[in-house]
Amino acid sequence: MVGDQIYELCKELFPINRSLTGDGVRETLSILRRELPGLNIMSMPSGSRCFDWTVPKEWNVREAYIVCPNGEKICDFSLNNLHLVGYSIPIHETVDLEVLQEHLHSLPELPDAIPYVTSYYKEKWGFCISQQERDRLKPGSYTVHIDSKLEDGELNYAELLIKGDSDEEIFLSSYICHPSMGNNELSGPTVLTYLTKYIMSMANRRYSYRIVFIPETIGSIVYLSKNLVVMKERIVAGFNLSCVGDNNAYSFLPSRNENTLADRVALHVLQHFVDEFVEYSFADDRGSDERQYCAPGIDLPVCSIMRSKYAEYDEYHTSLDNLDFISAEGLDGAYQAYVKVFDVLESNFTYKINVLCEPQLGSRGLYPQESTKDTWGIVKNMMNICAYADGTKDLVAIADKISIPAWDLIDIVSKFKKSKLLEKV
Amino acid sequence: MVGDQIYELCKELFPINRSLTGDGVRETLSILRRELPGLNIMSMPSGSRCFDWTVPKEWNVREAYIVCPNGEKICDFSLNNLHLVGYSIPIHETVDLEVLQEHLHSLPELPDAIPYVTSYYKEKWGFCISQQERDRLKPGSYTVHIDSKLEDGELNYAELLIKGDSDEEIFLSSYICHPSMGNNELSGPTVLTYLTKYIMSMANRRYSYRIVFIPETIGSIVYLSKNLVVMKERIVAGFNLSCVGDNNAYSFLPSRNENTLADRVALHVLQHFVDEFVEYSFADDRGSDERQYCAPGIDLPVCSIMRSKYAEYDEYHTSLDNLDFISAEGLDGAYQAYVKVFDVLESNFTYKINVLCEPQLGSRGLYPQESTKDTWGIVKNMMNICAYADGTKDLVAIADKISIPAWDLIDIVSKFKKSKLLEKV
Amino acid sequence: MVGDQIYELCKELFPINRSLTGDGVRETLSILRRELPGLNIMSMPSGSRCFDWTVPKEWNVREAYIVCPNGEKICDFSLNNLHLVGYSIPIHETVDLEVLQEHLHSLPELPDAIPYVTSYYKEKWGFCISQQERDRLKPGSYTVHIDSKLEDGELNYAELLIKGDSDEEIFLSSYICHPSMGNNELSGPTVLTYLTKYIMSMANRRYSYRIVFIPETIGSIVYLSKNLVVMKERIVAGFNLSCVGDNNAYSFLPSRNENTLADRVALHVLQHFVDEFVEYSFADDRGSDERQYCAPGIDLPVCSIMRSKYAEYDEYHTSLDNLDFISAEGLDGAYQAYVKVFDVLESNFTYKINVLCEPQLGSRGLYPQESTKDTWGIVKNMMNICAYADGTKDLVAIADKISIPAWDLIDIVSKFKKSKLLEKV
Repeated sequence: MVGDQIYELCKELFPINRSLTGDGVRETLSILRRELPGLNIMSMPSGSRCFDWTVPKEWNVREAYIVCPNGEKICDFSLNNLHLVGYSIPIHETVDLEVLQEHLHSLPELPDAIPYVTSYYKEKWGFCISQQERDRLKPGSYTVHIDSKLEDGELNYAELLIKGDSDEEIFLSSYICHPSMGNNELSGPTVLTYLTKYIMSMANRRYSYRIVFIPETIGSIVYLSKNLVVMKERIVAGFNLSCVGDNNAYSFLPSRNENTLADRVALHVLQHFVDEFVEYSFADDRGSDERQYCAPGIDLPVCSIMRSKYAEYDEYHTSLDNLDFISAEGLDGAYQAYVKVFDVLESNFTYKINVLCEPQLGSRGLYPQESTKDTWGIVKNMMNICAYADGTKDLVAIADKISIPAWDLIDIVSKFKKSKLLEKV
Repeated sequence: MVGDQIYELCKELFPINRSLTGDGVRETLSILRRELPGLNIMSMPSGSRCFDWTVPKEWNVREAYIVCPNGEKICDFSLNNLHLVGYSIPIHETVDLEVLQEHLHSLPELPDAIPYVTSYYKEKWGFCISQQERDRLKPGSYTVHIDSKLEDGELNYAELLIKGDSDEEIFLSSYICHPSMGNNELSGPTVLTYLTKYIMSMANRRYSYRIVFIPETIGSIVYLSKNLVVMKERIVAGFNLSCVGDNNAYSFLPSRNENTLADRVALHVLQHFVDEFVEYSFADDRGSDERQYCAPGIDLPVCSIMRSKYAEYDEYHTSLDNLDFISAEGLDGAYQAYVKVFDVLESNFTYKINVLCEPQLGSRGLYPQESTKDTWGIVKNMMNICAYADGTKDLVAIADKISIPAWDLIDIVSKFKKSKLLEKV
Repeated sequence: MVGDQIYELCKELFPINRSLTGDGVRETLSILRRELPGLNIMSMPSGSRCFDWTVPKEWNVREAYIVCPNGEKICDFSLNNLHLVGYSIPIHETVDLEVLQEHLHSLPELPDAIPYVTSYYKEKWGFCISQQERDRLKPGSYTVHIDSKLEDGELNYAELLIKGDSDEEIFLSSYICHPSMGNNELSGPTVLTYLTKYIMSMANRRYSYRIVFIPETIGSIVYLSKNLVVMKERIVAGFNLSCVGDNNAYSFLPSRNENTLADRVALHVLQHFVDEFVEYSFADDRGSDERQYCAPGIDLPVCSIMRSKYAEYDEYHTSLDNLDFISAEGLDGAYQAYVKVFDVLESNFTYKINVLCEPQLGSRGLYPQESTKDTWGIVKNMMNICAYADGTKDLVAIADKISIPAWDLIDIVSKFKKSKLLEKV
């Protein structure tokens, strides 16, 4: 199961302190480059203007913790990087509990969990702590120690372009800006890494593939600002890989325009590949980089197949979204669904039958020799392709029309093409 | 509550004997002109040919009643003008009860009610009487007295044109041809009067407004025959105001083409402004001047928001549709719904966002200072406008897409325009 | 009831041994020509290439039976022609029961029934037998006797072209290639025969009609290969008549493109003419000549109104689909439904009203003199035609809009045309 290897990669990447910028992002991208030779790691300097946004300062942390009145060290960043509010400014100060409380974040409804909090665009400091631990804090003086740097540097991201027969591109994006959490986010870049290996292993590749690992929001904005024209020219379908690691659910978030090739294929795969899935709406439920990819004027056809969607599970954005929340099975399910998506996209041509009226399959050696329930299904599919390959419907449209998975037609179409029964339109 | 003032106007107009023509119509229009200075009262002579119709003679009544064998006076027009069949010819005659019966109208299923009956296009005479009173009539000689005049004169109607920035017009029509009844009809012209005051009070008026008070059917035909070309050129949305006075229900009657701007805005308002409403069909349920405004070749976008629809409540076209059947609350509800309709129409531009990818609201001072549940809703609406203002959807379409009332977006759009984030397409 | 005459024709045709080719087909077509003078019987030689297919050899049978070890004659073709597998090669041989069993066909789930089996494109021999009889066969030697001929000859079919005012054609097809079975198939050609008589009796015929009686599949392919260009030019609606004989159900099979004039009218008729009907899908349920008529590149608008559909009733393709399974009532129901289809098609023009606003029906003598519930319905229909005859909707679209059968509008439209109220677009 490919999911096992993906899970191993998650374990390796889990401890690294990722954020929008910094050493953790670079370390993560280096490990991905080890897996994907040719991955091109790029940078954009702090302060760069990209559309309406400015690339933030680079943030790095050496250590961070709080010393209690009794000398106990708590909220130690070296034990769990979620303890430190992302982009916290450096500080070394002793404060009363009341003052400290204003800088603490916890979740009363999940008393075991350390929440995940950031303050990218407002300079401040803070710690995240479980409600249980917080409730135990006694009045007194606390020494707050954050040895971080927030200074001009760069924002890093990576890109891999895989050439296919056509310049038309499938676009795949995932993000690498969250510290130690599993479903959101490590499942995304790790599943995408193994999908990239799958794409590179394809014998014949119809489409070119544009694969990016970026910090969420600002990263997609940076990338779009540098590549918009070519992306709009070439991308025919795109997918934002996020929350593809747990084994509790499948879900779908459409693109803004809702009926693009990407949406049609993703929905088709979900309808035939999994027992059930949750269908979210772009208007009410979007929240990741589709917000940028589908913005007016950008208008890329980008949707998402997910497992449990961000903001829709209790463990989301807490220390409980850990390596136990995700699983090899969960990762593998998402991986296999996307493999189906690519297989269908690669085969999704529009065909026209070359014969008037129903063809004689037998005289062309296309009729199965034996007559079993299986071969009866194949014959039915063959006759249905003959009936619907009228030059106006792509393979997915035909499969939708006859209510079967498109991948059941791929082999038949291939034989029909060899027999000159079908031609591409 | 504006409904209180509208109700007072209903009380003033209630006793007047309106019909297709005559002094009652002129008196009614004079009172409306008192409320709406500038209202232009117009006339069309009897016998004028308008499309397929001929303007009828003018009808006026001095007195009408029946004297019973015992000398009692019944069906006295001066006590309730519904007692006399509309357009009754003059008569002074003594007849037996059997002959009289052929000229009486009553409602066995509503024994208390005097029905409302007219005979516009066939010259005859008749009286309307409650079933209870009719059942008490004894055999004998009855003196029938109708002092009416049916002679060449004119048909009256009134028009008010209110200029806006654009020549494009919103068209509002109501009718003034029914005697003493409340929901159908006094609610119509009175609510329209107060809506006209509202329109005149608008600080900035995008649209011009064409407001007419006419006798039903023949009046709309007369008006269309004189104004069709300019109406077809200018009217972008129209509403026929009828049955807007009781507090029992809301209802909607679409235009014939069903998906015009008028229909879209009226449905949007009803979906968000009232708890529930009845949706009628043009094919099965039309019955007022939309029959003319939406006729083939006329094709104006005219629909109706109503309270209890004509022909759908027991009291309809009887003396029970009186000042007790309507109420200040009922009138006010319809008034407020139409105010929403105008507010939405005036703001219903198609916008395009000026920034690629999501904009930085904070740097533009657009992000709320405080973070409350209310401001969270506003931020969500702001981001949704950014996501959907792609130059193809008007404000109502965006509001429909994100399932909120369009009026919740008006203030945001205004701020966005000031910040140059949005531009009209 | 026309169904009685149709049933008599079924009885006459029932015993004949029809197949793809041979004397039985010619005898059947001769009887149809007796009913339909002018029916043109045509032929295509064995071995002719038609699109992807080759016309098979002609098959004729003199006698066929099996002699049991005890001398008893069973599976006698002269008693029931279903006993012989269609297109069986000649044989005279004595075989053991085990060998014989390999050539026998029966239905364990219908032990009384002789199944219907053919082997058109693979030369072999076989007998069909009821399961009950098969179970009684004792071990021993059986003499198999089939005196058949399978040799070059011709395939026969028949065509009748009935001229109308326009060159535009209604296409009607049924098949004549099954031996003694009732619903599938004798109901098809017999109902079509009586529908042809109806069409010939029409006083004014707007459309031309192209009527064909052909062997299923190969016959429609032969006919299309000879007539495709003119058929594509002229045919505006077509119907494949199959399984129109029993009284158990009504059903509908759409054309491949699903929303053609033929589909719209057939569905309209079923919606208003029968209490309920089964709606099948082209993708899942097609199985007769619509497979050829609707094939890509052929694309004729051909659908079917049926009674119990082929392959959807237990008796299908067995000796139980006999003269008891069909009935005069069943045949008559299908006949009447198709009569409605033709009546609607002949009247299905697009009209435009000549008057602006609602017309005065009374002044044109169009208003009913008496006021009853019936005349109220007529007035409502008249006003609805006035409202919807806007030059964009044909009669069926108007009838669908106002939810009444189109045939209720035919008389009104005719009167309106005489009064110059309506004109054809």
